[in-house]
Amino acid sequence: MDRPDEEDDDQFDPETNNLHQPLLKRNRTLSSSPLAIVGTKVSHIESLDYEINENDLFKQDWRSRSRVQVLQYIFLKWLLAFLVGLLTGVIATLINLAVENIAGYKLLWVVKYIEQERYLMGFAFMAGANFVLTLVAAVLCVFFAPTAAGPGIPEIKAYLNGVDTPDMFGATTLIVKIIGSIGAVSAGLDLGKEGPLVHIGSCIASLLGQGGPDSYRIKWRWLRYFNNDRDRRDLITCGSSSGVCAAFRAPVGGVLFALEEVATWWRSALLWRTFFSTAVVVVVLRAAMEYCKTGDCGLFGKGGLIMFDVSGVSVRYHAVDLIPVAVIGVLGGLLGSLYNYVLHQVLKVYNVINKKGKLHKLLLSLSVSIFTSVCLYGLPFLAQCRPCDTSLPNATCPSTGRDGNFKQFNCPKGYYNDLATLLLTTNDDAVRSIFSINTPNEYNILSLVIFFVLYCILGLITFGIAVPSGLFLPIILMGSAYGRLLGIAMGPYTKIDQGLYAVLGAASLMAGSMRMTVSLCVIFLELTNNLLLLPITMLVLLIAKTVGDCFNPSIYEIILELKGLPFLDAHPEPWMRNITVGDLADVKPAVVGLSGIEKVGRIVEVLTNTTHNGFPVVDSAVGANELHGLVLRAHLILVLKKKWFLTERRRTDEWEVREEFTSIDLAERGATIQEVAVSKDEMEMYVDLHPLTNTTPYTVVESMSVAKAMVLFRQVGLRHMLILPKYQAAGVFPVVGILTRQDLIAHNILSVFPHLKRSKGTKKGN
Amino acid sequence: MDRPDEEDDDQFDPETNNLHQPLLKRNRTLSSSPLAIVGTKVSHIESLDYEINENDLFKQDWRSRSRVQVLQYIFLKWLLAFLVGLLTGVIATLINLAVENIAGYKLLWVVKYIEQERYLMGFAFMAGANFVLTLVAAVLCVFFAPTAAGPGIPEIKAYLNGVDTPDMFGATTLIVKIIGSIGAVSAGLDLGKEGPLVHIGSCIASLLGQGGPDSYRIKWRWLRYFNNDRDRRDLITCGSSSGVCAAFRAPVGGVLFALEEVATWWRSALLWRTFFSTAVVVVVLRAAMEYCKTGDCGLFGKGGLIMFDVSGVSVRYHAVDLIPVAVIGVLGGLLGSLYNYVLHQVLKVYNVINKKGKLHKLLLSLSVSIFTSVCLYGLPFLAQCRPCDTSLPNATCPSTGRDGNFKQFNCPKGYYNDLATLLLTTNDDAVRSIFSINTPNEYNILSLVIFFVLYCILGLITFGIAVPSGLFLPIILMGSAYGRLLGIAMGPYTKIDQGLYAVLGAASLMAGSMRMTVSLCVIFLELTNNLLLLPITMLVLLIAKTVGDCFNPSIYEIILELKGLPFLDAHPEPWMRNITVGDLADVKPAVVGLSGIEKVGRIVEVLTNTTHNGFPVVDSAVGANELHGLVLRAHLILVLKKKWFLTERRRTDEWEVREEFTSIDLAERGATIQEVAVSKDEMEMYVDLHPLTNTTPYTVVESMSVAKAMVLFRQVGLRHMLILPKYQAAGVFPVVGILTRQDLIAHNILSVFPHLKRSKGTKKGN
Repeated sequence: MDRPDEEDDDQFDPETNNLHQPLLKRNRTLSSSPLAIVGTKVSHIESLDYEINENDLFKQDWRSRSRVQVLQYIFLKWLLAFLVGLLTGVIATLINLAVENIAGYKLLWVVKYIEQERYLMGFAFMAGANFVLTLVAAVLCVFFAPTAAGPGIPEIKAYLNGVDTPDMFGATTLIVKIIGSIGAVSAGLDLGKEGPLVHIGSCIASLLGQGGPDSYRIKWRWLRYFNNDRDRRDLITCGSSSGVCAAFRAPVGGVLFALEEVATWWRSALLWRTFFSTAVVVVVLRAAMEYCKTGDCGLFGKGGLIMFDVSGVSVRYHAVDLIPVAVIGVLGGLLGSLYNYVLHQVLKVYNVINKKGKLHKLLLSLSVSIFTSVCLYGLPFLAQCRPCDTSLPNATCPSTGRDGNFKQFNCPKGYYNDLATLLLTTNDDAVRSIFSINTPNEYNILSLVIFFVLYCILGLITFGIAVPSGLFLPIILMGSAYGRLLGIAMGPYTKIDQGLYAVLGAASLMAGSMRMTVSLCVIFLELTNNLLLLPITMLVLLIAKTVGDCFNPSIYEIILELKGLPFLDAHPEPWMRNITVGDLADVKPAVVGLSGIEKVGRIVEVLTNTTHNGFPVVDSAVGANELHGLVLRAHLILVLKKKWFLTERRRTDEWEVREEFTSIDLAERGATIQEVAVSKDEMEMYVDLHPLTNTTPYTVVESMSVAKAMVLFRQVGLRHMLILPKYQAAGVFPVVGILTRQDLIAHNILSVFPHLKRSKGTKKGN
Repeated sequence: MDRPDEEDDDQFDPETNNLHQPLLKRNRTLSSSPLAIVGTKVSHIESLDYEINENDLFKQDWRSRSRVQVLQYIFLKWLLAFLVGLLTGVIATLINLAVENIAGYKLLWVVKYIEQERYLMGFAFMAGANFVLTLVAAVLCVFFAPTAAGPGIPEIKAYLNGVDTPDMFGATTLIVKIIGSIGAVSAGLDLGKEGPLVHIGSCIASLLGQGGPDSYRIKWRWLRYFNNDRDRRDLITCGSSSGVCAAFRAPVGGVLFALEEVATWWRSALLWRTFFSTAVVVVVLRAAMEYCKTGDCGLFGKGGLIMFDVSGVSVRYHAVDLIPVAVIGVLGGLLGSLYNYVLHQVLKVYNVINKKGKLHKLLLSLSVSIFTSVCLYGLPFLAQCRPCDTSLPNATCPSTGRDGNFKQFNCPKGYYNDLATLLLTTNDDAVRSIFSINTPNEYNILSLVIFFVLYCILGLITFGIAVPSGLFLPIILMGSAYGRLLGIAMGPYTKIDQGLYAVLGAASLMAGSMRMTVSLCVIFLELTNNLLLLPITMLVLLIAKTVGDCFNPSIYEIILELKGLPFLDAHPEPWMRNITVGDLADVKPAVVGLSGIEKVGRIVEVLTNTTHNGFPVVDSAVGANELHGLVLRAHLILVLKKKWFLTERRRTDEWEVREEFTSIDLAERGATIQEVAVSKDEMEMYVDLHPLTNTTPYTVVESMSVAKAMVLFRQVGLRHMLILPKYQAAGVFPVVGILTRQDLIAHNILSVFPHLKRSKGTKKGN
């Protein structure tokens, strides 16, 4: 066992504890990269401090908090939840307004050119507009906020799991995400605004919690209660639920999405606050739609929101219909896992391209935009014109506006181009068209096949480019096409409407790729507003998820691993029962301990030479060592900055500390040892670490299995876990090692103990 | 600090560790009662073992589990979830069928007597029928299954929190609960079938998980995977969700109810399985209703299910309507907390009566039944007959059947008795009538006042009697009456329908009394099937809960405390930061340790003289003690029973253990030391405890604050938590104490350290 050998005293005997025989030979050091990709930017990641730091100052602060302050805190918590909902709702409305108008007028111009049979001019206009819109989005993302690229959901997931992702929730990111999302969606790229809305909601929550952007923070006294990682975590959970709710207008679905997919820790009090936020979002969205009915919102229309309301439709199905439903589920699972696999490969290639520099990122995005324009405009010419069905009462056929299920495009009067209906429109309208019910003969099989293949390709190549992009819509588009195809194939044998097949197809592919279940089910329930669909939706989701799980993990897990974000899983791997935390401590660098009253010079030395963020504080006497607790790097730097030094080795009084430090000081983070200047005289002085030490760190005994240690680490939300020796003897250093998040990541452990993988590796099931 | 002084060796020096100075003077011993009231029966409670017992045998069992067995386990888990949903749905349908028919025919007879103006005969028949039905329910509950009385929800909550409540989930309890619930509800008592359905769902789940009733268990090999507290916990969570779903036909609401109110631990995998169960319940209920539409179910009608479907109604309200809505919320909170307070007092009195014996229990129930009959039959005579409003198109007025909003009762033709509509009917129909919309002038204010006052009284006196009773319906009845009254009072100033006022009143009183929010909101959403109602429902619930929380805890918490169930709260009390686990250990009886290889005599002595369920196992050498782990009482008894003794002090090999014990043996519980006979010779032999010891118990250092220790205890789901000394020195016994659930209950700590209460006692908010 390694002992710190830089001790300034001879209190610790490095030769003790020879009782301990490591079970496993040390292969190499358990090390891990502190780098991860946030958005498209490589960042230095840290862990968050969710643990309550029970030092003397914290206790003092907490004791002095009056009843009024507690009420202020509660009031502010609810006010912030309200504001998160309100702002998310307003911004979602503005995004929808902008997208519907920009894309709408663009399409109207294109239609006008086509009516005049100026096909080439139409293409030039469309491709040009799309190019410019993509350019705006990509330039913003590449040059101003690389963290705004992509959906943001994996990073939020990691943040709520305890990984600090820098620049993820800033004001620049928020603005770039909003404008970039408008640009990218209006440009007709195969991506959605759903993922970005989740990120936008989280950004709003984070900014509100800290009182504004970093450089212009409101220094409101009340807000200091929120200057900690725990309350920020709760706020961002609220924000992400609000985002999902704004995307799908599904308040319960939004809450469950955050609960099932995004959040790691959850309390029932949070459930209610989150629900409050999403309800505010729904009220805002409804108010906006109510207002826009008057026609003051340009082409806003239904606001790109209700995708499929079948509350009035009576859904009828029989036991025999369960067979096609099961087929949809199986295929959805297979396709979903295949999609995950191919997308993984594409993203690897894209990572290589993106790493080459900003210009490469930009060119990649623009190429995808041009390819998309070519396909969307060119492919409808392959479709045959179909005669309008005059028996349908309410449909305009052919339509020349931007709406409608039967677009005329290049066809003569009385005919429509079904592929143009699907391609020359916004993605939201395409989903609405393909979901539409009682339209069994609207789409040609060939058109649907072309649509499906095209969106498979676009879905794979679009996701990784440097613009804000969501995964929901591409998957819904793919899934609905294959569902409808299946519906046509099953036509004679089933009573289920083809529109419902499209919905089920979309659901199955989402379950097959994202592996969410309850939240998807509720989101689809709220979209369709029809409880009768619940049982078959559940069946499809269950089958698709089960099939998908046989092949690979969910797309978010794949992205998390690809980005190198150290996400702690809920369930330990089974082989983790075969290894103890003591074994892990053996392959880590020696733990660096500090004395309760420590020399300034040693503190500076330790902070300079290590990258650890926590140091055990040990008081020693003859024959007995006492573990006092754990002190954080940030607090040590604070002491050095404030030069709170003693000329002699002595314990300080409580008032001495309180005169110098406040709990607000302790909440500050981000200072580095390089910013600190300590003179040579000061190096010989002392610091009393006792009042700044967290006296109640969570600990495990070295014989604890990694599996159970990980449960503790994750359930309680730790940053550092101290390992205690299982031997009680004189002179033993009371801390064997310190484990952090990175040490418990399966991948990192396996790189040191590869033989563990060969032991039984099947999970006990979900 | 106390050291075990019964050690058979001189390895532990009782005089060491004088470094430690307890901060708080010892007042008296931290003790707690192992008794609690389950249903109406005083039972001996224990804790459940959720922690994975990582001893050699468990590791062996887990390693030998093949991939096929893992798949069997997963398949069985889903099959059980399906069966729980199926059976709960079927039983709920049967209960509804029985109640609607029994109560329906009873009421038809009463109406017939009244038509013939044989009022006294009508009363005699009704009171007699109610008396007999109550008698059946009460006799069953008093003599066969006292645990079936009451709603069962507090006990389920405690079980899922880790408290074993004996006889709670047996076959007798299930049958008594079903028949008793039918009897009590048909008897017209002011109670619902909602709470009992939750209990029934949980019973079904538990019985399925263990393969049948205790004496007739199926010994199916697969089922042995479920012979542990963790899987049983998950199953019972499924069962309770199914129960709520069956009560309200609200699948999402059922899941959220279990999540918010009942369950303590929750995993996202469980979310999905629970949802699956509730969906099955919904399918069964719908199928039953579909079938009963043909008229084969007697008076089943709408099956007592949909209470208020307003999906077709367009709800309109303006900003100014928020004022009455807020008033409803405030009043609901006040009334709810008042109800909690008075019910608490009533239950205390009832406890005294119930303790006097079975006859007293029976007489109490029957008195309540007679009082109820007198009121329900007599009070309508006080109401004035009201003329029928002929402008209403679809209503039969006056009606003489059991249904209908306008009952004729004692009135002449063309007139109806509004109080009879509300009282001479089943509780479900009463709710439907009072919820009905577009009937602004149906009810006289005086009738509503009488109804409200009557149900306030009945709600208080009925709940504690020895029959299966739910809290939901009484509160809905009270709340709807006061909501409708408020609606009439607000009439001229508001556009909201009086039926909606009744719904909001019911919601507010439930929130004011039960303090649930999200699940109530979703249940009401699913009942009303109208998303437009969501914002005002939320507002009402939020206000009512907040107001109620100012006065007292939720009704379930009150009942839990009254019953003496040691429920561990999610949030530690603030004063728990001021006390360490070491302080608690000081006021507990000394920890009793065992050696790794221990004398049989000492084991017998320890088991006989203590009631502890876990014993630390410590290996000692000169100058060093090693904590090997924790051994459970059940496993020690197993060793004694199997007489697995050694003639010499030696470590055993793995195969020796595996020959003697299987992991199934280790899962058995309930044996007592009195059943074991050990001869005098055997007393001198040895047992190797190492292979049976859980080598990875969770531990805390003695300086840990109780607040943080409690977070660990609850989050990880422990039964025993070992306290380690913070000093590392020669000869120190490596375990300072063991904490159990009872030691962390606020009430128990305060009885020893009363001064803590006086320190800042405000919670940091929800």
